Amino acid sequence: MNNRQIVLKSRPVGIPQPQHFELVQAPVPELKDGEFLVENHYLSVDPAQRGYVNDENNYAPPVPIGAVMRAMAVGKVIASRCAGVSVDEFHYGWFGWQDYCVATPAGILRKIDPELAPLSTNAGLLGINGLTAYLALHDIGQPKAGETVLVTAAAGAVGSIVGQLARQAGARPVAVVGSDQKGEQCLRDFGYADFVNYKQPLEAALKRTCPKGVDVFFDNTGGEIADTVLRQMALFGRVIQCGTLSIASWVPNPTGLRNDREILTRRLRMEGFVIFDHLKRYDDTARKLAAMIQAGTLRYAEDIGTEIADAPQALVDVYAGRNTGKKLIRLR
Amino acid sequence: MNNRQIVLKSRPVGIPQPQHFELVQAPVPELKDGEFLVENHYLSVDPAQRGYVNDENNYAPPVPIGAVMRAMAVGKVIASRCAGVSVDEFHYGWFGWQDYCVATPAGILRKIDPELAPLSTNAGLLGINGLTAYLALHDIGQPKAGETVLVTAAAGAVGSIVGQLARQAGARPVAVVGSDQKGEQCLRDFGYADFVNYKQPLEAALKRTCPKGVDVFFDNTGGEIADTVLRQMALFGRVIQCGTLSIASWVPNPTGLRNDREILTRRLRMEGFVIFDHLKRYDDTARKLAAMIQAGTLRYAEDIGTEIADAPQALVDVYAGRNTGKKLIRLR
Repeated sequence: MNNRQIVLKSRPVGIPQPQHFELVQAPVPELKDGEFLVENHYLSVDPAQRGYVNDENNYAPPVPIGAVMRAMAVGKVIASRCAGVSVDEFHYGWFGWQDYCVATPAGILRKIDPELAPLSTNAGLLGINGLTAYLALHDIGQPKAGETVLVTAAAGAVGSIVGQLARQAGARPVAVVGSDQKGEQCLRDFGYADFVNYKQPLEAALKRTCPKGVDVFFDNTGGEIADTVLRQMALFGRVIQCGTLSIASWVPNPTGLRNDREILTRRLRMEGFVIFDHLKRYDDTARKLAAMIQAGTLRYAEDIGTEIADAPQALVDVYAGRNTGKKLIRLR
Repeated sequence: MNNRQIVLKSRPVGIPQPQHFELVQAPVPELKDGEFLVENHYLSVDPAQRGYVNDENNYAPPVPIGAVMRAMAVGKVIASRCAGVSVDEFHYGWFGWQDYCVATPAGILRKIDPELAPLSTNAGLLGINGLTAYLALHDIGQPKAGETVLVTAAAGAVGSIVGQLARQAGARPVAVVGSDQKGEQCLRDFGYADFVNYKQPLEAALKRTCPKGVDVFFDNTGGEIADTVLRQMALFGRVIQCGTLSIASWVPNPTGLRNDREILTRRLRMEGFVIFDHLKRYDDTARKLAAMIQAGTLRYAEDIGTEIADAPQALVDVYAGRNTGKKLIRLR
């Protein structure tokens, strides 16, 4: 059986580009005891993948040159020599940018119940994106009724869910996006009460849309946008540091405004969130989100390509904000 | 009765200098109903006073030009037309850099029991400094046995207490100081297990003294020292943003390394602490600290001048790190 794989060809600095990857073909090896074979249906494209390939400070060791690109995917088990993993099961896990993955149970993030929601949602809304939105917003953000929740990359895979969950909590979500078109979508589909296009003068737009200040800042971008938002935080505001999409490279470490004084005088609490610390709560949280899909109280947006060869460009597009909602590559 | 007062003459940018102040003499006005007269014994000199006189972003409005310098002090009531405040009582409050203060109950931070501890300690260890050390360390830092607690301005009014409290909690406190002499004092008197002189290469010194990383960073200085420390934090570390002594001016806002990525990948929690949010817990906490003084389990250092005219220079000295422990001006 032939296996198409996107492998890492060279080590990027900053955002990985298509030339850092290569599409290769390889036979699928024989399964050994304890292994199973996954046929990938949906490949996930995530900003976090930049960190997987760079030699930057990160929470996981970098993907070796020549190895299949580390990625999450939704797939079906088509052969198994592993006790507890059976043919025809669907799983979400570390199956890589490839057609087939020889996996072990360590690579599984979550067993999927395909009856619960459309299969693709298991890579986004019921995958790390929905989990991140739900847990980071509630654990760190703790939005109260009437509070203002500002979200960067608000039309993205995480932000599109945060807006709706913040609204459900009785808060007033405000979107930060890169185009008016995305802003309109945030108002129409994702529960946002207002939006800011960051290509316009940001401070004035924040004062207009968040007149009482920002109580919860769900930050997916970092950088200069974050610097400006910090100066519009309300006293005792909470800042969820969830991603740094706006930073093209951390080598060398970029500079920006010092924020020490803002954190001190506004008594902010800023906290980093990495979803992989919270996998024990995965099933519970995914069930809650699936129930919202079924009840029609949670919308999701997916931006689905169909060519495995396009996966590297899709990652570039996510960093450029050219996606709306969860970026996926559908293989079957 | 003649009242010597240090008044603000002009608005400083950055750290206020002696030329921004003036020593004037004024008669003590007659008390009106609801007022009482305090005879100041100890004037407090605090880094926070920079923020009181600057037009910088802060948590309190600036002292007007020509007004008595805002300061905390320990004093004795020598006349009263205020129900509930009696002659011969000692109080700690907003009595200013002056001999006498016409005050109202709103200016009282805490009524002092002069039997409990030496009078001077009520302006430092039992004043905002001890309170800050105790509450910020335990509320935000939450040090666990065996953890490393790094403290900047470690020989100062707050840091000298934090070291001892961290040691009592079973943690391993490490001092950051500006001289080996202060470092030795931190080891000898303030419970520290090791020290770093920040005038030496800091990263190497941190790696040597905190080989497992920093679990709790009690930061009184901010700036470049803090940037370097953040890159030595352990996963899930806590950062107490308590002061920004190292920053000469916030106008214009200085720049430095972006720390977004450190907060994210190390899953840090960084929180601003301002003691005036916690005044309800003042009496309880001061009692705990006074009990430690009486039991001989808590040392304190005071650096006491005796000339009211020297108060502005004392503030400059605190910013230059020329004090050891709590800086006070004793008037009686």
